[in-house]
Amino acid sequence: MVHLARSRPIAVPPVETDKLIAELNALAAISDCPEPPPAVTRVVFSETDLRARDYLRSLYEAAGLEVRVDPIGNTFARWPGADPAAPAVGTGSHCDAIPHAGMYDGTVGVLGGLEAVRALKRAGFTPRRSIDVIMFTSEEPTRFGVGCTGSRAMSGAMAPTDLARLTDETGDDYDTVRQRAGFAGDLAGVALPAGAYHAFVELHIEQGPELEAANLPIGVVMAIAAPAQAEFVVTGEGGHAGAVLMPRRRDALSAAVEMIAAVERLALSSKSPDLVATVGRLAVHPGAVNSIPSRVGFSLDLRDIDGANRDAVLAAIEEETDAIASRRVVKVERRVLNADPPAACAEKIVDAVRRSAESLGLGYQQMISRAYHDSLFMARVAPMGMIFIPCRGGVSHRPDEYSSPEAIRAGVETLALTLAELAS
Amino acid sequence: MVHLARSRPIAVPPVETDKLIAELNALAAISDCPEPPPAVTRVVFSETDLRARDYLRSLYEAAGLEVRVDPIGNTFARWPGADPAAPAVGTGSHCDAIPHAGMYDGTVGVLGGLEAVRALKRAGFTPRRSIDVIMFTSEEPTRFGVGCTGSRAMSGAMAPTDLARLTDETGDDYDTVRQRAGFAGDLAGVALPAGAYHAFVELHIEQGPELEAANLPIGVVMAIAAPAQAEFVVTGEGGHAGAVLMPRRRDALSAAVEMIAAVERLALSSKSPDLVATVGRLAVHPGAVNSIPSRVGFSLDLRDIDGANRDAVLAAIEEETDAIASRRVVKVERRVLNADPPAACAEKIVDAVRRSAESLGLGYQQMISRAYHDSLFMARVAPMGMIFIPCRGGVSHRPDEYSSPEAIRAGVETLALTLAELAS
Repeated sequence: MVHLARSRPIAVPPVETDKLIAELNALAAISDCPEPPPAVTRVVFSETDLRARDYLRSLYEAAGLEVRVDPIGNTFARWPGADPAAPAVGTGSHCDAIPHAGMYDGTVGVLGGLEAVRALKRAGFTPRRSIDVIMFTSEEPTRFGVGCTGSRAMSGAMAPTDLARLTDETGDDYDTVRQRAGFAGDLAGVALPAGAYHAFVELHIEQGPELEAANLPIGVVMAIAAPAQAEFVVTGEGGHAGAVLMPRRRDALSAAVEMIAAVERLALSSKSPDLVATVGRLAVHPGAVNSIPSRVGFSLDLRDIDGANRDAVLAAIEEETDAIASRRVVKVERRVLNADPPAACAEKIVDAVRRSAESLGLGYQQMISRAYHDSLFMARVAPMGMIFIPCRGGVSHRPDEYSSPEAIRAGVETLALTLAELAS
Repeated sequence: MVHLARSRPIAVPPVETDKLIAELNALAAISDCPEPPPAVTRVVFSETDLRARDYLRSLYEAAGLEVRVDPIGNTFARWPGADPAAPAVGTGSHCDAIPHAGMYDGTVGVLGGLEAVRALKRAGFTPRRSIDVIMFTSEEPTRFGVGCTGSRAMSGAMAPTDLARLTDETGDDYDTVRQRAGFAGDLAGVALPAGAYHAFVELHIEQGPELEAANLPIGVVMAIAAPAQAEFVVTGEGGHAGAVLMPRRRDALSAAVEMIAAVERLALSSKSPDLVATVGRLAVHPGAVNSIPSRVGFSLDLRDIDGANRDAVLAAIEEETDAIASRRVVKVERRVLNADPPAACAEKIVDAVRRSAESLGLGYQQMISRAYHDSLFMARVAPMGMIFIPCRGGVSHRPDEYSSPEAIRAGVETLALTLAELAS
């Protein structure tokens, strides 16, 4: 049992799991995926994204929260505290989903954050600090090639001018697209004022297999691994598939596949077992069965707990791709979109999460987040922590991503007690 | 000077090159390519294809030809001969263009065929046999994955039921799409009656570098190389790019790039120097920067003058891709879309082309067509020949594909004399 300052103690927050699962299902139904839920596609600033935002707003208002939307759509649903001038406590996550993804990534942190607040209200708790449930815009890099644009801009990790210039596949820039989606105001107004948050804590599915394997309901995140993302464009020489003999070819795809094989080889031989490298996107130009590829673009996603090792592997990939391009007489252009440093979680939040799990009788382990989250950037402007819950088979970014109602309940209870402690 | 039976001799057919080039330019302007001509995209049964057909019909009618359109849009513009019951002489090619292609591939054979007929008319020539300028539907495999659907169906190389079942990327079948485009009638009516043509001869740009290198205006084609086309689908296991460690992955793209590297290696080490292998199309599912590919589809185009060697290389590729799939614990599915035998040109047509070039004082060489043409299938139902003209740098299927007005004029003059001889 946790004793909360300035309020009566709460043993177990009265979480309404059925209601929360129904809301997760309702949100999953707002999707552009041709397959039905649990398959979800929800890309930032699409009509579908806007419908999802409308749905969330209706829930926030029903819960009596005060809603603020910033110039790029980051949404803050505030439960005002007894001392509204005190720095607030933030929680939340994202609701966008990559093409053909699942229904729990991000959404558990937004709707679970809302349910944590509602459970504390039900319990009669009165927070000293205000509590904000935040829905970050565009955690996924699907549309603009860069992930976490919402939290990057909020934390000052990305300047408004750089944000405005990002372009999607049609060539439209971020500033135009967000305005067309109905978000107005000066981009300079997105950055949070210094000291706005006393603490930020995000509830999220693990997206990995460790908690399930250990049969533990709660992961107390100690740090977030360092991701780097880059785009490669290989330019060779096209031509008719029937007419140009093999030795005379400068096939952009043949060069690209050798580069991608090198990425895998360098990742597998990395000295850090935690380093992962992924080429998730590849486009061939002109893309006809009987045409030699003249241009190939592909993405690289590189992560490690050890930032220095990640940078060393990135450098090795650059060297190797240059050598392949030179040998094959093709051109390779690279653009590093981001190479963010890892973030450590704040001790006071780690302690609060641990105490909350203990008071609920929930087993936990300390762990690293290998996936990328808005918390990585929130750590720049506030003490940050994360709570993980298990997901089946460690599967994420797929329609069969799944966390059980029991797992979600445990996560929301832990979050609620953590918020209560931090807001007291 | 060629003496034509039953008509007065024609020394040089009065080809109007400026008019022909203007028509090629007008046709190139009917394009779905975002870039202006000479970049061209014209996919079968699209609105743009239909506009191109309307334009061609206006030219045929202005030339006084009788137009017949079959149930899949193959178009026959007939100049009736003095003996209309005699088997006709055919010429022609295609007007569809792969995405981001050039403006000469195919079109030189259709508009050049028309100009050859007009030149013979201007010269006062009267053919004994009727002469048909044919525009074949869908020589390019862009939409339905199989090339030469028009000539395959005309020659009986593809059964109407198989044709009807071909599907495009949206899942629509050939039969539905052709009807939506306004082409009606029983597909069984596409096959040509036996003996319909006394001869078929196609004028085409070389799409290779040999004529330019030899500084010769005319290529007399002796045979068409044997193409095979297949589709591969590799299925592995997806997941979040940050969360699944490298040794646990079954990345479909990592497997596919190893397979594509094997295709190139096997082609380069083939005992035939003429064997070419091309992977021109590749699609990654789900195709997100931060998602491990779960499924990759790619195309294979394999050609050789030596059909047995081509089949041996295809078998080696199948063996190698099976081994890679097995080692990586992914699934590979293959579908051979076509593996047609090579076709030899008819001696009487080869001789007629040679005599025509000689009488015009044009240098020529005998050669092999490494590219795929409707003539490959017309060879099944008629004696077949082809006339090649040089194109700059051997470049084709690219916007910078180019044949000079002089090269085109020489080709049309040669074609006109060849048609006159064959139709006499």
